[in-house]
Amino acid sequence: MSKKLKLGVFGLGSVGQGFYELLDQSKNPNLEIKKIVIKNPTKTRTIESSIFSTTPTDILDDPEIDIVVELIDDATIALEILKQSLQRRKPVVTANKKMLAGNLEEIYWLQKKYETPVLYEGAVCGSIPIIRNLEMHYAYDRLESFEGIFNGSTNYILTKMIDEKINYDKALDQAQKLGFAESDPTLDVKGYDAKYKLAITIAHSFGCFVKPDHMLNIGIDKISAHDIRYAKRQGCAIKLIAKAEKIGNKIFGIVAPTLVPLENPLASVKNEFNAINLVGASTGLQMLTGKGAGSLPTGLVVLADVASLLAEFKYSYPKVIPGNPVTFEKDALINVHVSFVTPGAIHPTDFEEFTGGYQGEDAHFMTGWMRIKKLEEWVDRDDLSIMVNDDTHFKVYEPKKEREFSLA
Amino acid sequence: MSKKLKLGVFGLGSVGQGFYELLDQSKNPNLEIKKIVIKNPTKTRTIESSIFSTTPTDILDDPEIDIVVELIDDATIALEILKQSLQRRKPVVTANKKMLAGNLEEIYWLQKKYETPVLYEGAVCGSIPIIRNLEMHYAYDRLESFEGIFNGSTNYILTKMIDEKINYDKALDQAQKLGFAESDPTLDVKGYDAKYKLAITIAHSFGCFVKPDHMLNIGIDKISAHDIRYAKRQGCAIKLIAKAEKIGNKIFGIVAPTLVPLENPLASVKNEFNAINLVGASTGLQMLTGKGAGSLPTGLVVLADVASLLAEFKYSYPKVIPGNPVTFEKDALINVHVSFVTPGAIHPTDFEEFTGGYQGEDAHFMTGWMRIKKLEEWVDRDDLSIMVNDDTHFKVYEPKKEREFSLA
Repeated sequence: MSKKLKLGVFGLGSVGQGFYELLDQSKNPNLEIKKIVIKNPTKTRTIESSIFSTTPTDILDDPEIDIVVELIDDATIALEILKQSLQRRKPVVTANKKMLAGNLEEIYWLQKKYETPVLYEGAVCGSIPIIRNLEMHYAYDRLESFEGIFNGSTNYILTKMIDEKINYDKALDQAQKLGFAESDPTLDVKGYDAKYKLAITIAHSFGCFVKPDHMLNIGIDKISAHDIRYAKRQGCAIKLIAKAEKIGNKIFGIVAPTLVPLENPLASVKNEFNAINLVGASTGLQMLTGKGAGSLPTGLVVLADVASLLAEFKYSYPKVIPGNPVTFEKDALINVHVSFVTPGAIHPTDFEEFTGGYQGEDAHFMTGWMRIKKLEEWVDRDDLSIMVNDDTHFKVYEPKKEREFSLA
Repeated sequence: MSKKLKLGVFGLGSVGQGFYELLDQSKNPNLEIKKIVIKNPTKTRTIESSIFSTTPTDILDDPEIDIVVELIDDATIALEILKQSLQRRKPVVTANKKMLAGNLEEIYWLQKKYETPVLYEGAVCGSIPIIRNLEMHYAYDRLESFEGIFNGSTNYILTKMIDEKINYDKALDQAQKLGFAESDPTLDVKGYDAKYKLAITIAHSFGCFVKPDHMLNIGIDKISAHDIRYAKRQGCAIKLIAKAEKIGNKIFGIVAPTLVPLENPLASVKNEFNAINLVGASTGLQMLTGKGAGSLPTGLVVLADVASLLAEFKYSYPKVIPGNPVTFEKDALINVHVSFVTPGAIHPTDFEEFTGGYQGEDAHFMTGWMRIKKLEEWVDRDDLSIMVNDDTHFKVYEPKKEREFSLA
């Protein structure tokens, strides 16, 4: 594809504008935007109006357009755009994590069927080139686990709440004003956005496809001033952590507020920054840190993907191999800290292994190993705040054996 | 190149063995080592002897061998192997930083001339995919500066000296036993190894080729117990830092022991780990951390390079563009801390801007802005220990104007 490429762009939100601006600045003679399809033609824009259209087929059916850059919000429409583009053999660059995470296995097969690539570095961890590194650098390493801060908006909110003692609502408001938050903030604060990215990263790390619905996500919206004080006393930060681990042929994964000891470099990753710690059998620990949100950082990654198509780069999904026995397992034991106000809200018997508890004047907590299946029942309870202890791993859940009858 | 590739390997030291082992484990049906050329045929080895040879042409002149993997120590012979391989249109994977740094501009042109790629991720920062990221991720960002820990051996030694109060000689001995150190340890401890990597990284970051001889390197071998105490009191770590900065169209760069404030995440990078902080106009700050030395971490990167050739990846040197006005400038002002034992060893007038000094019972120091040209004269003085202050930037050196004659 070493020729001049014409691009059709869907959507001109925060990332789209960053992408447009950077492409314009780059003065790359081989890349030109021919058409931008937008939803709302009445918005005032600084770009000359002839480039805009509200009709998707102006891009899809234009044989002159070589590449589709999909940067809209709606996952259902984004999937339709992706499919129609691939059918027309137009490579796609997208940053739509919800669409990707929900349909990644199908998208994998569609790329094979139409021999047309889809690149989506911008969908995971903003400016951090994590997918590219998993593709090219980790192809031959056996990844054991990864954990990371995958959502810039919640990391910004937690930083403000903890370091600057700003309350949750005000911090969320700031994140939205700075353009870090998703248009629907519940996607951020409830951990869905991080979970979409987790699902995509699991596919590239371990070669198994998992639907986001099949993973537990716990949000940051229940974190209390009590939790923050507790974390500080324990020498921990509170971070919304997405993590996955391989035990045998099973992959376990979760998104949850997590007590991260200050010695873990993830504890020092602040504001809109994202980071990922990867543990490989040969490389050992690697960490990548960078801005996880924002118009220019994400726009640059989209531009890098477009430029990679110029160099005929495509994902090879090195871990997705025939007969791969690796599967995702939802249930597991995980070590959690649960705080609550009303005495008796939870009981030691709720834990598979109860470690300890504290009953104070204003707040109580219990810690121990719990089944993810059990935690799922608690996620929507407003009276509980659940945090994972970061210095623990997943444990495979094995039902307790019935005690054998014995006369002795 | 999507076919079965036969490899010819030069050298079977620490990295070569890691590479061999990982390739063997990978059971990749498309990659096979046909021949390994070694210097010493009498060494006992676990690999079957028929694969070995001591004759370079057994690889170079074998038309069946598609790729040359060069992992020997000697830079002069390595360059000869590289040239002869390219002449025969055999792509080369190498980890020889000394050879690369000293000849990178020529190697750039040879790749063009013979239309045959050279990949060398293993030459810079061990397991960290820094070159690949500069190539593909930062191609469209304007890099402003980078700084990093580029040498695992010295970082290991400094960690042992500072955290465990082990003396320099014993720490060096440990690093050598663990296989982190170069066969000639002066390359590590005097900062040459880090400087070779700096030169390579500058080419990929800023598009200008600089010979290592044209940059100043200060080693860690003069660091005293007094310096370590001083750093601790200042809330700093001491790290051997390689850094480069773009000011206008000039690139400045140096390798030196550096007082790194504990807030800078580089301060927490310990033992054989390497790290790099990159500052780009659009991406902002990014950091990559990983093992900088060791048989398997570096062997894996070499394997990733070989696999990338299978996918027809080659470096595009995106910043090396016709008419690029960027050039390296050796001289600059840099903020340093110089400690010494003998009173009067140096004078405030040695500094362009003298900031302050301390005269104690057992040790003295002075800080201020100095010309790199002047520091060069001090590098080999055994009575001076020189450290850069990390929270400062380079300053362009401008000769002081002669005071104009005035009657007023």
